[in-house]
Amino acid sequence: MNKKKTTNKRKIRRAPTESDVARLAGVSQSAVSRAFTKGASIAKATREKIIAAARELGYHPNLLARSLATRRSNIIALAIANLENPFYAQVAQQLSAQLRETGRHILLFTSSIYDETDPMLERALSYQADALIMTATKASEQLADQFKKAGVPIVQINRESKIAGVSTVWGENYRAGKVAASHFLKKNHKNFAFVAGTKISSTSHMRQQGYIETLAKNNIKNVQIVYGEYSFEGAANAARKLFNSKNPPDAIFCASDYMAFGVLEVARREFALKIPIDVAIIGVDDVPEASHSAYDLTTFSQPAAALAKEAISIVDKMIANPNRRAIRTEVAGELIIRGSTRR
Amino acid sequence: MNKKKTTNKRKIRRAPTESDVARLAGVSQSAVSRAFTKGASIAKATREKIIAAARELGYHPNLLARSLATRRSNIIALAIANLENPFYAQVAQQLSAQLRETGRHILLFTSSIYDETDPMLERALSYQADALIMTATKASEQLADQFKKAGVPIVQINRESKIAGVSTVWGENYRAGKVAASHFLKKNHKNFAFVAGTKISSTSHMRQQGYIETLAKNNIKNVQIVYGEYSFEGAANAARKLFNSKNPPDAIFCASDYMAFGVLEVARREFALKIPIDVAIIGVDDVPEASHSAYDLTTFSQPAAALAKEAISIVDKMIANPNRRAIRTEVAGELIIRGSTRR
Repeated sequence: MNKKKTTNKRKIRRAPTESDVARLAGVSQSAVSRAFTKGASIAKATREKIIAAARELGYHPNLLARSLATRRSNIIALAIANLENPFYAQVAQQLSAQLRETGRHILLFTSSIYDETDPMLERALSYQADALIMTATKASEQLADQFKKAGVPIVQINRESKIAGVSTVWGENYRAGKVAASHFLKKNHKNFAFVAGTKISSTSHMRQQGYIETLAKNNIKNVQIVYGEYSFEGAANAARKLFNSKNPPDAIFCASDYMAFGVLEVARREFALKIPIDVAIIGVDDVPEASHSAYDLTTFSQPAAALAKEAISIVDKMIANPNRRAIRTEVAGELIIRGSTRR
Repeated sequence: MNKKKTTNKRKIRRAPTESDVARLAGVSQSAVSRAFTKGASIAKATREKIIAAARELGYHPNLLARSLATRRSNIIALAIANLENPFYAQVAQQLSAQLRETGRHILLFTSSIYDETDPMLERALSYQADALIMTATKASEQLADQFKKAGVPIVQINRESKIAGVSTVWGENYRAGKVAASHFLKKNHKNFAFVAGTKISSTSHMRQQGYIETLAKNNIKNVQIVYGEYSFEGAANAARKLFNSKNPPDAIFCASDYMAFGVLEVARREFALKIPIDVAIIGVDDVPEASHSAYDLTTFSQPAAALAKEAISIVDKMIANPNRRAIRTEVAGELIIRGSTRR
């Protein structure tokens, strides 16, 4: 199949070129090129004339062809597990909005939550992505190795990495657990539980550690741990287990808001528990729903906007200097006290 | 800035080429090319040897360069407003998973819910996207015109279009309203309300029309209409208005599940109403949360998977024959009866 034929199949007329635009606008071809290059010198009136001509012809500069020359595609690959969790949807939205300001776009790779070693992600390299950002999932050694060879940085949001080349940005996970425990202790709770995410989640581990260690320092060793699998329904099941246990908790710390919602609803609806009198609940994330009167959830915030900003800033630093060591940054959060904990 | 310098800045070594891989694997360059071409004839053992060599060198076929020759990027642009609404997050996840099966990826464009005429979307053409899929937002005349000139199809999910070249796929919006009204009438409700989305949403209009017209046929003309702005908090406010009105409704149809959750929670928590005795609620979408015991929402389904599948099928048909007329398809839904309506 020759090139001409393919073009014809797609569209009867050939695609308009820079010189078509130049001819229609009555300017030089290099003026057209400058009109579509950020920061290039060109008179405003000339630029407007060129844009109008381009629009009339349906001309759009081919960024892919350009990226072959500059080796910069302005495409950032985003691997996201669990897009249905509102926190990660928020992170994706923030990344997209912030990257857009610098003319960059997200090439989306979704996968299931347990799928950590996805060979499909190597495709990001075939698309000449300038970087890979991963949320709620992490890079395998092999993936990291391929990206390293290509000189394309990987940044993980909210997942630890022991791999040398992988940068990470995370919320204050240990502190989230510590602060939640301290807050419960101040309010004289007696029976503590933790609703963890998944067993492989480093984020959940860190939150658990901060919580457990702070309670242990106060001589509380008997903390029930259940797994909510980072889902609403998983957390609802975990809550049923807790409330049906011999020693039902009066203080529950959940590794995400989304899970806290599941616990909260089961407490109210199935066990007729009053919140925060019978049981107090603290989440992590501060998703928009947490502030809704329906949930009114006390939570340790993980600002999606700040995490996105930091991830992009790491991407920029790594691109500017591909030989520098991976960057690891923490983004501060805070306990936001609402109605799901005692006054 | 010459090309060499840019390359050097990015990475000290030059990127490995097809012939590097051929040399290391001890095969011809055309064998390497075949190894990375879907469906090309090559012995399994040879292919494996080549893949191993590619991996060792960090070689990845440049899909962008390839797309310049074939005019097919395998990139589908997705414009999505309201990613924080779990229904649209689900649609995005479905599109991504289904496109992935055919080796295609999503270039993500997010925007705010009211932002219907986004010049940024023309960028999808510069990235040589094979198609543009839009959800919860719609194309302006100008956008449609530019895509038409480029021979790149636009498919809208769940938004009507009066523009000639724009294809659409939607749920049974009119029928959703009709079925909700009939269900309420069967259960002897007396006071009806509708929580609409936004004023500009054609989807919300259609649902409202089906609801209102079916009630009118049964001599019910006095239906309260409030706007929930397609958000949880917006719907909560709308619900407060309804429950504080002179004639509070005992049957509320909401244009989305997400809004129904807001109404449900305000009814229970702020007005101590029993559901479905005091007030019955029906949503639209059937998001995963609707089946959770916490909400247990009766809803008219809009299957995200089926909408995604249909949208992709339209994209494929339009690409195969760019001169064909826009395709408009409806995806069937059904009323899923749960605990938020009377037995």
